[in-house]
Amino acid sequence: MIKHYLLTPGPTPIPPEVALKEALPILHHRTSEFASVYKDVAEGLRCVFQTKNEVYMLAASGTGAMEMAVVSLLSPGDEIVVASCGNFGDRWAKIAEGYGIKVISASVEWGKVVKPLEIEKALRANPNVKAVYTTFTETSTGVANDIKTIGEIVAKTNAVLIVDAISGLVGQEFKTDEWKVDVVVSGSQKGFMLAPGLAFITLSDKAWKLTESSRLPKFYFDIRKYKKSYATNETPFTPPVTLIVALQESLKLIKERGLENMWNDNKLLAKAARSGIKALGLELFGEAPCEVVTSASVPVEIGGKIVKILREKYGVSIAGGQGDLKGKIIRFAHMGYIGKADLLVGLACLEMVLSELGVKIEKGKAVAAAEEELLKA
Amino acid sequence: MIKHYLLTPGPTPIPPEVALKEALPILHHRTSEFASVYKDVAEGLRCVFQTKNEVYMLAASGTGAMEMAVVSLLSPGDEIVVASCGNFGDRWAKIAEGYGIKVISASVEWGKVVKPLEIEKALRANPNVKAVYTTFTETSTGVANDIKTIGEIVAKTNAVLIVDAISGLVGQEFKTDEWKVDVVVSGSQKGFMLAPGLAFITLSDKAWKLTESSRLPKFYFDIRKYKKSYATNETPFTPPVTLIVALQESLKLIKERGLENMWNDNKLLAKAARSGIKALGLELFGEAPCEVVTSASVPVEIGGKIVKILREKYGVSIAGGQGDLKGKIIRFAHMGYIGKADLLVGLACLEMVLSELGVKIEKGKAVAAAEEELLKA
Repeated sequence: MIKHYLLTPGPTPIPPEVALKEALPILHHRTSEFASVYKDVAEGLRCVFQTKNEVYMLAASGTGAMEMAVVSLLSPGDEIVVASCGNFGDRWAKIAEGYGIKVISASVEWGKVVKPLEIEKALRANPNVKAVYTTFTETSTGVANDIKTIGEIVAKTNAVLIVDAISGLVGQEFKTDEWKVDVVVSGSQKGFMLAPGLAFITLSDKAWKLTESSRLPKFYFDIRKYKKSYATNETPFTPPVTLIVALQESLKLIKERGLENMWNDNKLLAKAARSGIKALGLELFGEAPCEVVTSASVPVEIGGKIVKILREKYGVSIAGGQGDLKGKIIRFAHMGYIGKADLLVGLACLEMVLSELGVKIEKGKAVAAAEEELLKA
Repeated sequence: MIKHYLLTPGPTPIPPEVALKEALPILHHRTSEFASVYKDVAEGLRCVFQTKNEVYMLAASGTGAMEMAVVSLLSPGDEIVVASCGNFGDRWAKIAEGYGIKVISASVEWGKVVKPLEIEKALRANPNVKAVYTTFTETSTGVANDIKTIGEIVAKTNAVLIVDAISGLVGQEFKTDEWKVDVVVSGSQKGFMLAPGLAFITLSDKAWKLTESSRLPKFYFDIRKYKKSYATNETPFTPPVTLIVALQESLKLIKERGLENMWNDNKLLAKAARSGIKALGLELFGEAPCEVVTSASVPVEIGGKIVKILREKYGVSIAGGQGDLKGKIIRFAHMGYIGKADLLVGLACLEMVLSELGVKIEKGKAVAAAEEELLKA
């Protein structure tokens, strides 16, 4: 009977009107009814991705779409630049290396942001590089990379730019075409306010050219199959029908609220979260905090306990650190269907847990600081 | 406002108590609550697969699990035998060839069943063969292969046996361990009575040995990652949480009804479907009809029309033929949450559509013949 408050960076809460769509009698995927949903959703995705290009859907977690962006573009022995600043950025290198791709690193320490100049240098030093892989909002540390500047740099070369926008899309300003991003991948369980299991990918003309010469082995992740099926409002393999039907509803909600308003809502929540965290005497983690998740450094001896007690005693789910950051940071998500009141719940319960763990804090201060930010808007 | 009756071989109808689980507030996948669901589901899957081995789950359509069964076991240049009798069997060869695997065919014409003796011959002639890939119930034609006999043959060799049981599991008697099947793949949207988007795979010890030497490139479909996470009731990548929560409910329903009763229910429906089809003067298609879908040959000039009119005028969804069988056959599914009354609806509406298309039939005869079979039980 514990009441849950989900403040994790994926899955994020699902609006009830979206969740209920998942429970409707299932449609068959080779029918005019489903085609009409597909068409509508395909248009909505274009708007969210801010692209004139087609956006494809596949049954997979976001990592599946990442692998698609590797195997559909490259050939054995190709050189790429990976600019990582965290766990998810590192995943690009792991996927590519497994396929025999030569990875040139333009990565930085976890918590820092990717340096566009390092990418420029790497491209200049390695003129054969086919592609640059990086991350928009690095969920594992809570920073956002300057994709616009990176886009300018890569666009001047023969390389294409591939961005993991799994946690950032819908949540924070992102403009695929305007920022000259060639490939964007995303997933359903973050800003899209859906259950996990549906991944997205879009390609520019420059990226499509690469697919023509790509020789890495592939079947399920062969994007050419998805493009072909797209023309008839279909997918090459049975799609996750209930998630796509629910996506139609969540895209409707996003459209009603307005994409820009969604960005601004999160910007405000991020400000409030940061003020709250600082008011507790905790330090924010990360060089350039993103607007979908806020990370704070915590004493390593209580890091794991905070997350555990918050969940078990108060039903509040937040995330801890991953990899080397395990126990060292806590992460509050604020995107999608996470509202102002949810954030206050999270901060208030954090105050209680810190007190319980013997950290000297003034109760109510984090909440007050966050309220102040929220009221300014 | 058209009322739908889904008699397609995937997606199949979802029981409302299962569907509603998909609409519950989402759980985070790294929590004790989810771990407890995962554990329960993992046990239930073992029972359905009739295996003592672990069964893994991944976010993908069934084809994703098929690719996993190729890339996790093989190395470039390996030889395999593919014994196909239809569209889905052929997919094994397509996946493997894309990865540079040498495919030795023991396939038969679509509509026939795989010949165990041909597999035996192929294995004898090619002693280096690492694996035999085949299909349990070939949904595209409606036949079932004799996996038990094939299992006996392959078990005597160094090769492993991999079976696509995507449409057959739960629906028709299948015994992984007893039949000496090394790898079984399946999917959520058939006998499991769930929405599509969740795939399953299980491996024998003999198959695990192969994974150790496998050198095909892989990341998302690397089964070793899934095995590792299984130990802590997790998945390596964000799982389709709502589908797994719903699966817990559908496995409960399967347990309540009893797996053997589920098999027998479909056996009866299959008999009734065949009687109904024959009573209309149509010919059954396929050498050894399976118990989850019934195929009938239809005059090619009306094949497509039957499916279209059934759906658009009466809300009854059945499937037509695929590939070379397009327009030549119709396929009625009877598995999972498809009941006796649903089948009668399908046959009755088929009578009306055939009449409308000028086929000389006696109205009510298919329904009567099916009723007779159903009453015998």
